[in-house]
Amino acid sequence: MSGTPGPRLSRRQLLGSSAVASLGAVTAAVTPPAVADAAEPSAIAFYGRHQAGVATAPQDHLSFATFDVSSDASRSDVRAVLQTWTDVAARLTRGQPLAGPTKTTYPPADSGEATGLGSARLTITLGVGPEFFTSRLGNLADRPALLAQLPAYDGDALDPIRSGGALCIQACADNAQSAFSAIHELAQAGLGIIELRALQAGFTKNPTTTDPRMARDLLGFHRTTNNIGWTDVPTLDRYVWVASSSPGWLRGGTYLVARRIRIALEQWGAVSLDEQQSIIGRYRASGAPLSGHRLHDPADLKATGPQGNLLIPPGAHIRVAGIDGNAGQRILRRGYSFSDGVDSSTGELDAGTFFIAFQRDPQRQFGEMLGRLISGDALHRYLVHTSSGVFAVPRGLAQGEHWGSLLL
Amino acid sequence: MSGTPGPRLSRRQLLGSSAVASLGAVTAAVTPPAVADAAEPSAIAFYGRHQAGVATAPQDHLSFATFDVSSDASRSDVRAVLQTWTDVAARLTRGQPLAGPTKTTYPPADSGEATGLGSARLTITLGVGPEFFTSRLGNLADRPALLAQLPAYDGDALDPIRSGGALCIQACADNAQSAFSAIHELAQAGLGIIELRALQAGFTKNPTTTDPRMARDLLGFHRTTNNIGWTDVPTLDRYVWVASSSPGWLRGGTYLVARRIRIALEQWGAVSLDEQQSIIGRYRASGAPLSGHRLHDPADLKATGPQGNLLIPPGAHIRVAGIDGNAGQRILRRGYSFSDGVDSSTGELDAGTFFIAFQRDPQRQFGEMLGRLISGDALHRYLVHTSSGVFAVPRGLAQGEHWGSLLL
Repeated sequence: MSGTPGPRLSRRQLLGSSAVASLGAVTAAVTPPAVADAAEPSAIAFYGRHQAGVATAPQDHLSFATFDVSSDASRSDVRAVLQTWTDVAARLTRGQPLAGPTKTTYPPADSGEATGLGSARLTITLGVGPEFFTSRLGNLADRPALLAQLPAYDGDALDPIRSGGALCIQACADNAQSAFSAIHELAQAGLGIIELRALQAGFTKNPTTTDPRMARDLLGFHRTTNNIGWTDVPTLDRYVWVASSSPGWLRGGTYLVARRIRIALEQWGAVSLDEQQSIIGRYRASGAPLSGHRLHDPADLKATGPQGNLLIPPGAHIRVAGIDGNAGQRILRRGYSFSDGVDSSTGELDAGTFFIAFQRDPQRQFGEMLGRLISGDALHRYLVHTSSGVFAVPRGLAQGEHWGSLLL
Repeated sequence: MSGTPGPRLSRRQLLGSSAVASLGAVTAAVTPPAVADAAEPSAIAFYGRHQAGVATAPQDHLSFATFDVSSDASRSDVRAVLQTWTDVAARLTRGQPLAGPTKTTYPPADSGEATGLGSARLTITLGVGPEFFTSRLGNLADRPALLAQLPAYDGDALDPIRSGGALCIQACADNAQSAFSAIHELAQAGLGIIELRALQAGFTKNPTTTDPRMARDLLGFHRTTNNIGWTDVPTLDRYVWVASSSPGWLRGGTYLVARRIRIALEQWGAVSLDEQQSIIGRYRASGAPLSGHRLHDPADLKATGPQGNLLIPPGAHIRVAGIDGNAGQRILRRGYSFSDGVDSSTGELDAGTFFIAFQRDPQRQFGEMLGRLISGDALHRYLVHTSSGVFAVPRGLAQGEHWGSLLL
């Protein structure tokens, strides 16, 4: 009647941590030729100036994991796992099998879950949190100056386990199984050294039968109107990519902010359509701002109605979050919806938006905006933030480089 | 710093329960003409002899919800919600908007989440649990004779909230947002009367780049080898559909068993490929039984190797679960994988299979097999069952019928 599975030995205990590290080294040693093989045409390139998964149109599925560094892992242990992770990421994103023991008397090199699913346009994006930099790993001096958790905001209900983390992996793919499997493979490769802390699944879906073909969130409104375009290089360079920094691995990188935002769906569903639209500042059906008629009409924040009232009310979400309300700052948003069952304390759906944003300066671009949203956004009373994390996203790798040597 | 959202009134409190019931009645009154409109060609028919979602090839996404009947809901309250649910299900599965108030001074008729996503081949399948039959609702005499929860099994670690329920809805769709949204709409329509108890999301994915095109589970093996075929009417009639029963609404229906089965992924990943294959009784790559060469080769349970050993070992999963090991019984399986984050007590992935099976006799076909699996299946030590539910699935509806009049 016990709730625990039969076998109690972890893979690390079975193999010993040095064996795991050695496997990593063996894997990496055989990597370059195999990874140079042709990837599927639809695969998203893993190597490049920037990491994939940032200026990449969102795939339908997200698995976002955070990790802790084990308190007895050495610098070389962590370095070896990060080298293995690089190899795993390069292979999975190309739809190729993992390297590893071929003898059937050994555990298989991969979980087998994603066999036959191809690349699924998988992207694997690594971030490092403030906790990654420790005197034990000898990398305290490499901590980026702007890398810090956000301050506490009024109304935050942050789960400490879901928040923070020494490392994060954002895995996005065209199907949920490939996104999950990527995290599973990386967690398995890190056992005992880089240990899974939290995992969040997310989903989105672009319309198939209507225009605009832009996904809706669980509020029922278009998710990312007025976002920075994935191919808009000047705007990405201005707001997203870090241009110069110490350490050098952040040049061409960015900062990732993740917030798990629960939506009070039951209460939101009892709000009139007029009121929902006033709260957002847009029409629900078309996505047009209340000052306009079409989705991509710019919001006219000064436009007034017949009674002299502002068409986009003072507390409307798009007024407070938009570039004009946000001291000229912009962020690159990459939100997914989540559905995590029923909150047993209230009987309500535990669902909402797992919000990810990329920017050059997490506090100035995101944190200050969030402060304004929390005090001035009419939508905020329907939201509860249940996690928060800030991560520095290193620049992309060139073939032959790996995250271990880049970071340690 | 509170963890609760601002607005504290539920929709039922705002509207009053009689208003909710009236909305349901209004909705139903305007239904027939609109639902008779043409559905999308790819839509799966809601009306028919059997409910859709049983003998239907699994779509990629599952939202499986259970519900309680509120202790102060009357028979007419429940009947009205079930009537509304029928209308909601008929419309959503056709990719059509919900009926409801058109004035923008009222809450919108639907959540808006699935706008533009079409039918997404959505199926909505209703089941009723033992708890649905109460003296208060006056339907105790209608409880099907075989409708009872399964007995406790050795090793079960059942979460009481995830288990049981007066009603269940299995929503399956081609995308996660449509599957979630179906549950959200039904939960919203039931507020205060039929209340959400638990919700489980699931996913699967058929291979795109290899044959056989059969999904794999998180063990890495093909999910449903040797399953009953969706179009194999004689076998469905023999093992799945209830032929005669009192009450009559179960004739042409079936029984649904749901078990949330967590897989000890970390331990499974440390098992050699040989041992994994011996535990399952099949080759991982091809899915062939260890006695054969191809996926669909029948398992030869007597075949021996050079040393006289059984090729499919005594404790192999397919030997114990197969028709020969199972007293000639078969079930229709419809499994999905789940990924619910990290178990904070162990730091391991809380992931596995949300197993659904359909059969005419839940105890004789499923319960006895499960008993054999728990005592004799080599796989069982890697599994923990964390929920259990049994539901009677009524026959399909004809146009103009509704679940309220069928069941109450």
